[in-house]
This record gives sequence, structure tokens and C-alpha cells, in this order.
Amino acid sequence: METLVSAVAATLTTVAFVPQAIHIIRFKETRAISLQMYVVFATGVALWLTFGVMIWNWPIMTANAITLVLALTIIRMKLRYG
Amino acid sequence: METLVSAVAATLTTVAFVPQAIHIIRFKETRAISLQMYVVFATGVALWLTFGVMIWNWPIMTANAITLVLALTIIRMKLRYG
Repeated sequence: METLVSAVAATLTTVAFVPQAIHIIRFKETRAISLQMYVVFATGVALWLTFGVMIWNWPIMTANAITLVLALTIIRMKLRYG
Repeated sequence: METLVSAVAATLTTVAFVPQAIHIIRFKETRAISLQMYVVFATGVALWLTFGVMIWNWPIMTANAITLVLALTIIRMKLRYG
């Protein structure tokens, strides 16, 4: 049961960033987005990815690799749109 | 070493939401924030909290309880400011 709960939790906290990326692409607007948040968050996710590699855990590596790409995409758009 | 990496990762992915909450409080502006993202994310974090309780792991419980409060705060402000 724990495995199922953590798998759904990991999926949700990963795919959650897709609607934010789409929201920015659609409206080309990032004023309310905190760059600091995404830089700190992306650093944390990169460390989770490192942790996943250290213990060679595929779910942790996969979820955090996807989240990292999404977070970096949002950072790039924040830098572009201001 | 893995414990240290995961502890720092958990801390960063938790405190990351503080600058976003402050950013919204200061500028009272949430147009670029995706409500969908935060609802999906908060649900995932609530599941991580549930997982932490199931395996009685304090770091997972603590990090996700804090993140959940921050995510719900951002959702409330998004509903208020539109």
C-alpha cells in the first residue's frame, strides 16, 4: 500500500508543473512567478535526482529528472518574460 | 552521505515555496500562477505526508506538512487575487 501511495504522490508532484508551464506559454506572463522559488526548488530537485542515482532508485530518478526539466523550463521563461 | 543529500534536498524543495508566498503577499498579484498546478501539487504533497505517517518517518512528515501549508496558502491567495 505504501508503494502505491508514494508512486501516486511522486506522479502528482511531478506532473503538477505541466499546467504551470502551459499557463506561462499561453499567457506569456510570469510577473507573479518567484524566480527565487524556482531556483531553490530546482536545486533541491537536482539533489533528489542525485540521491536517486546514489541509491540507484528508478522512480526517484525518473520523477525528479522530469520535474527538473519542467522547473528549468519555467526558469527560462521567467528570465525571458520578466 | 545519502542521508545528507536527501535532507538538504527535502529542505530546499520545502523552503522554496516561502519566496513564492512572500512574492504574492508583497505584490498582491497571482495572474501568472497556475491554480491547477498548486491543487495537483498540494494533493501530491498531502499523499507524501500520508506516506510519511504510514512509515512513521519524521523528516518526510515534517517537510511535507510545511510544504502543504505553504501550497495551501498560495492557493488561498490565488483564489483571493484571481
